[in-house]
Amino acid sequence: MEAGDYFGETDLLLSEHMDESLSRNNSNMRREGANGNVDGRFSAVSTDDELLDIRTGALEHWHDSDEEEIAKNLSSSSSNLMDTLDDLPPGIGQYEDFHTIDWLRDIARDRMRHRHIIKKKQEGIWEKIKSAHDAWSGWVCVLLVGVAAGLCAGIIDIGATWMSDLKEGICAEAFWLNREQCCWSVSNTDANDDYCQQWKTWSEIFGGSRSGAGSYVVTYFIYMLWAIVFAMLAALFVRVFAPYACGSGIPEIKTILSGFIIRGYLGKWTLLTKSVGMMLAVSAGLSLGKEGPFVHVASCCGNVFSYLFPKYGTNEAKKREILSAASAAGVSVAFGAPIGGVLFSLEEVSYYFPLKTLWRSFFCALAAAFVLRSINPFGNDHLVMFYVEYNEPWYIQELIPFVLIGVLGGLYGSFFIKANIAWCRYRKNSKLGNYPIIEVLVVTFVTALLSYPNQYTRLNTSELIKMLVGRCGPEDDTDLCDYKRNYSSHMLNQTSLKTMTSSTVIGDGVYKALWMLALALVFKGIITVFTFGIKIPCGLFIPSMAVGAIMGRMIGIGVEQIVVANHDNPFFENMCESKQFCRITPGLYAMVGAAAALGGVTRMTVSLVVIMFELTGGLQYIVPLMVASMTSKWVGDALGKEGIYDAHILLNGYPYLDSKEEFTHTTLASDVMRPRCARYGSAVRNDPPLSVITQDSMTVEEVDHVLKSTSHNGFPVIVSRESQYLVGFVLRRDLNLALSNALKNQDGIVYNSIVYFTNHVTENPNGPAPLKLRKIIDMAPVTITDQTPMEMVVEMFRKLGLRQTLVTHKGRLLGILTKKDVLRHIAHLENQDPESILFN
Amino acid sequence: MEAGDYFGETDLLLSEHMDESLSRNNSNMRREGANGNVDGRFSAVSTDDELLDIRTGALEHWHDSDEEEIAKNLSSSSSNLMDTLDDLPPGIGQYEDFHTIDWLRDIARDRMRHRHIIKKKQEGIWEKIKSAHDAWSGWVCVLLVGVAAGLCAGIIDIGATWMSDLKEGICAEAFWLNREQCCWSVSNTDANDDYCQQWKTWSEIFGGSRSGAGSYVVTYFIYMLWAIVFAMLAALFVRVFAPYACGSGIPEIKTILSGFIIRGYLGKWTLLTKSVGMMLAVSAGLSLGKEGPFVHVASCCGNVFSYLFPKYGTNEAKKREILSAASAAGVSVAFGAPIGGVLFSLEEVSYYFPLKTLWRSFFCALAAAFVLRSINPFGNDHLVMFYVEYNEPWYIQELIPFVLIGVLGGLYGSFFIKANIAWCRYRKNSKLGNYPIIEVLVVTFVTALLSYPNQYTRLNTSELIKMLVGRCGPEDDTDLCDYKRNYSSHMLNQTSLKTMTSSTVIGDGVYKALWMLALALVFKGIITVFTFGIKIPCGLFIPSMAVGAIMGRMIGIGVEQIVVANHDNPFFENMCESKQFCRITPGLYAMVGAAAALGGVTRMTVSLVVIMFELTGGLQYIVPLMVASMTSKWVGDALGKEGIYDAHILLNGYPYLDSKEEFTHTTLASDVMRPRCARYGSAVRNDPPLSVITQDSMTVEEVDHVLKSTSHNGFPVIVSRESQYLVGFVLRRDLNLALSNALKNQDGIVYNSIVYFTNHVTENPNGPAPLKLRKIIDMAPVTITDQTPMEMVVEMFRKLGLRQTLVTHKGRLLGILTKKDVLRHIAHLENQDPESILFN
Repeated sequence: MEAGDYFGETDLLLSEHMDESLSRNNSNMRREGANGNVDGRFSAVSTDDELLDIRTGALEHWHDSDEEEIAKNLSSSSSNLMDTLDDLPPGIGQYEDFHTIDWLRDIARDRMRHRHIIKKKQEGIWEKIKSAHDAWSGWVCVLLVGVAAGLCAGIIDIGATWMSDLKEGICAEAFWLNREQCCWSVSNTDANDDYCQQWKTWSEIFGGSRSGAGSYVVTYFIYMLWAIVFAMLAALFVRVFAPYACGSGIPEIKTILSGFIIRGYLGKWTLLTKSVGMMLAVSAGLSLGKEGPFVHVASCCGNVFSYLFPKYGTNEAKKREILSAASAAGVSVAFGAPIGGVLFSLEEVSYYFPLKTLWRSFFCALAAAFVLRSINPFGNDHLVMFYVEYNEPWYIQELIPFVLIGVLGGLYGSFFIKANIAWCRYRKNSKLGNYPIIEVLVVTFVTALLSYPNQYTRLNTSELIKMLVGRCGPEDDTDLCDYKRNYSSHMLNQTSLKTMTSSTVIGDGVYKALWMLALALVFKGIITVFTFGIKIPCGLFIPSMAVGAIMGRMIGIGVEQIVVANHDNPFFENMCESKQFCRITPGLYAMVGAAAALGGVTRMTVSLVVIMFELTGGLQYIVPLMVASMTSKWVGDALGKEGIYDAHILLNGYPYLDSKEEFTHTTLASDVMRPRCARYGSAVRNDPPLSVITQDSMTVEEVDHVLKSTSHNGFPVIVSRESQYLVGFVLRRDLNLALSNALKNQDGIVYNSIVYFTNHVTENPNGPAPLKLRKIIDMAPVTITDQTPMEMVVEMFRKLGLRQTLVTHKGRLLGILTKKDVLRHIAHLENQDPESILFN
Repeated sequence: MEAGDYFGETDLLLSEHMDESLSRNNSNMRREGANGNVDGRFSAVSTDDELLDIRTGALEHWHDSDEEEIAKNLSSSSSNLMDTLDDLPPGIGQYEDFHTIDWLRDIARDRMRHRHIIKKKQEGIWEKIKSAHDAWSGWVCVLLVGVAAGLCAGIIDIGATWMSDLKEGICAEAFWLNREQCCWSVSNTDANDDYCQQWKTWSEIFGGSRSGAGSYVVTYFIYMLWAIVFAMLAALFVRVFAPYACGSGIPEIKTILSGFIIRGYLGKWTLLTKSVGMMLAVSAGLSLGKEGPFVHVASCCGNVFSYLFPKYGTNEAKKREILSAASAAGVSVAFGAPIGGVLFSLEEVSYYFPLKTLWRSFFCALAAAFVLRSINPFGNDHLVMFYVEYNEPWYIQELIPFVLIGVLGGLYGSFFIKANIAWCRYRKNSKLGNYPIIEVLVVTFVTALLSYPNQYTRLNTSELIKMLVGRCGPEDDTDLCDYKRNYSSHMLNQTSLKTMTSSTVIGDGVYKALWMLALALVFKGIITVFTFGIKIPCGLFIPSMAVGAIMGRMIGIGVEQIVVANHDNPFFENMCESKQFCRITPGLYAMVGAAAALGGVTRMTVSLVVIMFELTGGLQYIVPLMVASMTSKWVGDALGKEGIYDAHILLNGYPYLDSKEEFTHTTLASDVMRPRCARYGSAVRNDPPLSVITQDSMTVEEVDHVLKSTSHNGFPVIVSRESQYLVGFVLRRDLNLALSNALKNQDGIVYNSIVYFTNHVTENPNGPAPLKLRKIIDMAPVTITDQTPMEMVVEMFRKLGLRQTLVTHKGRLLGILTKKDVLRHIAHLENQDPESILFN
């Protein structure tokens, strides 16, 4: 373990695809860290931009307060420092890339800003307007984010539908229409009519006919061609414009929301590239969804719009409130589920989620859904493609197959996570990682080749799910709905009507469909493992749901036939009127299966159930959905703790302190802090002694030496070397700035000047002028004792959002404990190599 | 301000109705505190029951650990102390009544218990079963709680319906049937038929006829008689059996969930009394609801069942996880809204809500709803009385009246809160408070007298809301639905059918209905102010919703008529086909009004919207509901910050540290800690110096003197009087116990023995044997520096659930800061008298 990086979240680990982006997006990024030079030593943080630690207003508070003074101060309501708030340089509160933010400090900074505005409010109309603007800006910002997310989603949905259809044919008279619109606009007939005249398949355009072997080959070929073209374009866009746009983005957003800085990850280029890339990737017919990436797109909107409001743009902690709301909006537009989106943000994505954010997230999610509904991309007045209209009851006996589906979903989830992580690790550690575009093309080629012949895989995945969760109406004549029908005639308004009602006795078509579905299940299940992780935008909500829905539908048909066969068995009695009429809805099984598989993969719980019922409109199916997702989660958790997102976070080594997992070990702070066990006199493993600064005995030169010889982000200030009692904490940036500033501008300050961090300065008439730096130290660092158990330390890091804490023993400073130390320690305890895994 | 109560949450404030309960429920309660003797001095906490501070396993940890040692310790996985866990005396982790719990300590205790079980798991089958039982117990417990809550709700619903009907008549042949069942069981006709023969009104039974002036007087009289009898019974039950059963219970549950102990508040007697009292109170026709009290009933179930599982029953922090889930179940059965219940628990009630609790709460809420649905108390397959069946669209122009409704709802909410609090304060401070039963009777008399003549107030409040949010069908012939009708005839299957369709042109009946509704609005609005707070179980969800629904319906009819009158105005064009057919749904306005009024009173946000749409089944009305509740909350917040529950918490002086309100002042820890500003040498306002214990220089006698002369719950341990460096913290209970134990059982310990809190004991061969007490001190107390701003301190108290923190300056102990100090300080800053308000 390298020495002396108490603060070095700097040398953090860039996940494989971050590597690429660095070279492109962040020209001023430090390449050492990015290229795997993990010696933990960073060149000193450059501090051209100024930073004042105004943490908590502690700097120049009154000290002799008593009742009257408190009252007086209350009336004056804010301290002098605030008057200088306007003069603060830009860049304050900014962090370096790949650094961890200090939540406490940022939130304190925002409160101070708020107090400042409240105070100024009295000064005139203009200030009043500014204050009102400030109060409203949160709402305005989430409104804008919601509208933008809805617009993006609408555009992407429309574009993806058009391009998907382009693979099979084109609208002869108006190429910009997709098949549904094309047929509808011309003939006003049923859009599902396969033989709509305006829509030309490619074989027709190239002079062939609509059917026949030749036409099949031509269509097959052109289908594959388009798929490869789309995939290549997507991969190129990602590579050239925004490498961060690949993948689902949710693991990174979780990390960002937990307080990590990844510059450019939520930028406008990523937004654009991801939007276009998503359309292309979906249209390429790959086994991926656009629902996860919607969260990324919405978060990009959130980030972009937050810069319109300084309150959020300049404060990383506050910005995360907007991002939480944005991710809720992302799920809201992805699934048409505003409540589910908020719960997803709360449960899965967000880290710091005050109640105020809950309400704003809801507003944002609703605005997004409202905009998307106005755009109406699917033309059915619902936000989603698979809204089920049926309202059939379910029976308590059916809970048995639902539990079975849950178990299978959990098993699939675990298999998927393990296989996908193994493949991603292989990609990362082998040469494969160097040829991302070729990988995309190969995957696309295989997918297109294998998926075209099977009608269920050839379909857009969303359409497949829609078909599977649907009910067979009497008119459906697909294989899947090949049930024996009964015909009856009656008179209505003098017209003779022939009514068809379908029975539950299956025909041959269903057997054929079952075989095709089984093939589709195997194909989708396997190809998704290789698809999730390639270097184009790809989500896995939809593929997971498709796998689950296929499985569920198959089980549903099986259960249906068992019940039909045993319809006089007392156990099934209440479900059947006769052999022909058993009230089993295989579509419901597909819905439950989708929930189970998605639950197994992502380990979502409440949000999953809420999303599923908002998605399908099936409020009455909440119990089956819940049973299946609960079973699925339990089975999944028994086989491996992390969901896919957490697994990817771990794989990529993001510094994410999971707030869900409990820290159950019995180590103490003294086991984790640096330097190790200094109080026993001997530093273990060559840990250098703690770099500290004394409050009134070091010269400018000595302080400068400390700064130059170490790379820590901050230094504890102590009384003296002999009595190491803690005074405060000073940030490297501040110290650097203050020193260079004083040497340049302040009279009498030379390298020999004593640096004072105290109020009382002993003026030495003979020596050089003293340098007073009391203002720059944080007098209220968070401290713990060396005997504090790590579980409490972890709790404090999580709940207070700390970046570091100082460890004391009987008042003496012993060491320091940073978030990085905590993460390393957890990795170590869980038998993961802290070096290779956390900070690759 | 009295001296020396750094820890005195003991002398806390008993709210008015707690006063009563104390004399009954808790015979061993300390009467001094209860009776208003607020001198802040409590007799020393008696410590017959033992308490070991096993906080965090810190007591006997290894100290010289390095890599290998960590690994070794990991494999052994738990320390020796855990082996003694079985020997821990009962009563551990218990708190005195009206004390604050220490979340960190309780959670650490639970983790230790968990580790212990994991370790023992290897030892055999029985231990494995015990471990599995432990893992499942949370789920089993919430399942039981959910089922119990559902059962209670079902019984209460059925009982209340029967007794409500009893006021007007009785089923002649089967007195145990309510009117609906009575009519239905005999004739199978429409249950709403007013002239069902089996149902006898009281005037019929007493020989009169169904109609006529005489009959009216008799029915009126008997109606009032029953009302008064029911109310008296309810008041008597509450007074005799469980004084805690009065009110809605939500303010107290919030306080309990925030970590306060109120023994008996969630006991089985309260459960029984509240259930019966609720039936009686609702049946008495008072302007109150049973929805809020359902939360209390469910929480009682939660508390009672938690004792079946030692994991929860013996750990106050863990128990609160069950209580959070239970309160979700309460809302779930109250409104048939499982998701709304979870969000209510999250947003409004709970304090510490880890994600695990979210999932369990959902499960609990769903189980409760499922059971209630199986009981089917309303006979309509829905969980709630006011499920709307309509699916009419709403128009964007309608947002203007919705905003207006929101404003009115907010205004009403503020008016209600201010008036209700003023009246409750008057009751508390005047002689009125001494005659609770008479007050109940007077309120009942007035309510019954005034509500009978008006058909809208005579109705059960839930039925009123159902009527108001409903739509006028063509067959409805009530005043409210007196619209001009169109008749058309057509043939169906050779039968001539006459179809009625209602138009939107109103008749005289609607004018009459509007007048009656206006009267009902005024009456309900005012009487609820006097009703909420009387000494019977009473909730205010339903009355608030009723007020809002009346208001909304009236506005809805108004808007409807405006649109009808201007149906050719381009602004309204899309809403009307002709003058007769404008698609305005006044029922929707009633629904929106109910949400707005409820939002104004309770200041709920997301949970309110979700409850409303689950309640009415109107997923498509989420935008109108949201607009109205948002407006209502903003208007309400502008006029006064607290919702009704928070206002009652403040009124009753519960020690509740609101996690929603931000602390925005600029005071420092040194301004708040006790003793005040000790580091400046002069204690302000006669604060006595801090009571401390030194680590190795005090004799048993001196320690005993400290214990006897102060009443603090704990004492900091310092190095020596000269160098006040902090070593740890010791609880009064532990110290008392250890001293008396040592004096009794340990050889050589006399009053002159030196008490050592260190590892290294200087054995003095001449003096008496030393007393080693290192094991009982907490080596990891939470400390802050005196310069820490209070906003950060408040944050730490909230997020970490602290009970106290020690204040240091350069390592030296300066003072102590307890939750009580924080609450006092906040009250002081908000210009409330900390003495009279917080600790009455």
